[in-house]
Amino acid sequence: MQKKIVTISREFGSGGKTIGKTVAEKLGYKFYDAEVMDKVVKESGLSREIVERYDEYATYKNSLLYTIAITAGSNGYNGMSFASQVQIAQANVIKEIAEEGNCVIIGRGADYILRDREDCLHVFIRADMDFRANRVVSIYGETDKKIEDRIKDKDAKRRVYYRSFTMREWGDIANYDLMLNSAQIGIDKCADIICDVVRSAKSKEK
Amino acid sequence: MQKKIVTISREFGSGGKTIGKTVAEKLGYKFYDAEVMDKVVKESGLSREIVERYDEYATYKNSLLYTIAITAGSNGYNGMSFASQVQIAQANVIKEIAEEGNCVIIGRGADYILRDREDCLHVFIRADMDFRANRVVSIYGETDKKIEDRIKDKDAKRRVYYRSFTMREWGDIANYDLMLNSAQIGIDKCADIICDVVRSAKSKEK
Repeated sequence: MQKKIVTISREFGSGGKTIGKTVAEKLGYKFYDAEVMDKVVKESGLSREIVERYDEYATYKNSLLYTIAITAGSNGYNGMSFASQVQIAQANVIKEIAEEGNCVIIGRGADYILRDREDCLHVFIRADMDFRANRVVSIYGETDKKIEDRIKDKDAKRRVYYRSFTMREWGDIANYDLMLNSAQIGIDKCADIICDVVRSAKSKEK
Repeated sequence: MQKKIVTISREFGSGGKTIGKTVAEKLGYKFYDAEVMDKVVKESGLSREIVERYDEYATYKNSLLYTIAITAGSNGYNGMSFASQVQIAQANVIKEIAEEGNCVIIGRGADYILRDREDCLHVFIRADMDFRANRVVSIYGETDKKIEDRIKDKDAKRRVYYRSFTMREWGDIANYDLMLNSAQIGIDKCADIICDVVRSAKSKEK
């Protein structure tokens, strides 16, 4: 049975988003990265500012705001922190997207949210540090901060975000069906392999 | 640059050995699993009994023997425990095998021993528990012990063995270039993907 949903978790700078886009194009699937947040804004009644603040790079765990941002709004989330509201709205959006099928979803704990669906392929993209450093500088340019620190900081935020609502460890091998080191395998080849697996994957081989 | 060495770490029952054999056949590579131990016996001067006792499923961490088995032999390992002697001899054999190239090596921390070689592809095979349980029963039959416990026990031994001389965590995503869930992808397809990656892998993509 061809997998209808591909979730891609990825280390920062590994090319996971690029790989996901290529996979979506090749399979004729829809691609969701920031697009998830557009839907969250539309469906939750939360402002774009709030949704973006609590998206994947949320630093709320270190933020006073997290402690005090309990709302008494009129959107059905009374008494919840904004962080929880965004997470719940995001999980609902990801479940809706999955229900439509034929999609690639980047990050945001989608592997966890959709863990009970058998039509998903859960992918993790990692890469060696020097490969990631070169890519990040060529795409985003240099800043005052050391490149390795920028990368570790982004990964740490993804890890905290993931752990905060899944109670699982980001990058734990048990959560994925396929892990690829893009530095060794190559960005294009990673996309080819994922497409190949999607097309041929069995629902449950006994 | 085609990878000359494939190391395969694997969860018990995941089909990692079968996949490795198929990969070796398809690529025309030599296959090393228990064959590593034959070479260790031949080259170390240690007895087969000792070598097998301290192979991958060694239980020496819980064994009094581990504490007292310090030898004063004449094979250049004076004063070392048998466990250490076997590990060192095994690492030397694995390095020799790698030097010859064109090989598939199963388990025994080969990914760690060969971590600095750029011509290696490090693979981890995992699988869902029900898939592994069915395979183990069909291959090895039933015993008095619950099948899940047998599987967990074997994995635990591999984990302890790996940690004991690598100081790394078995199954940590950072140690591998490719991880495949054989239950979702299928045994044959896993072998195909590994061959494909070996043939096309880049030494270091920038």
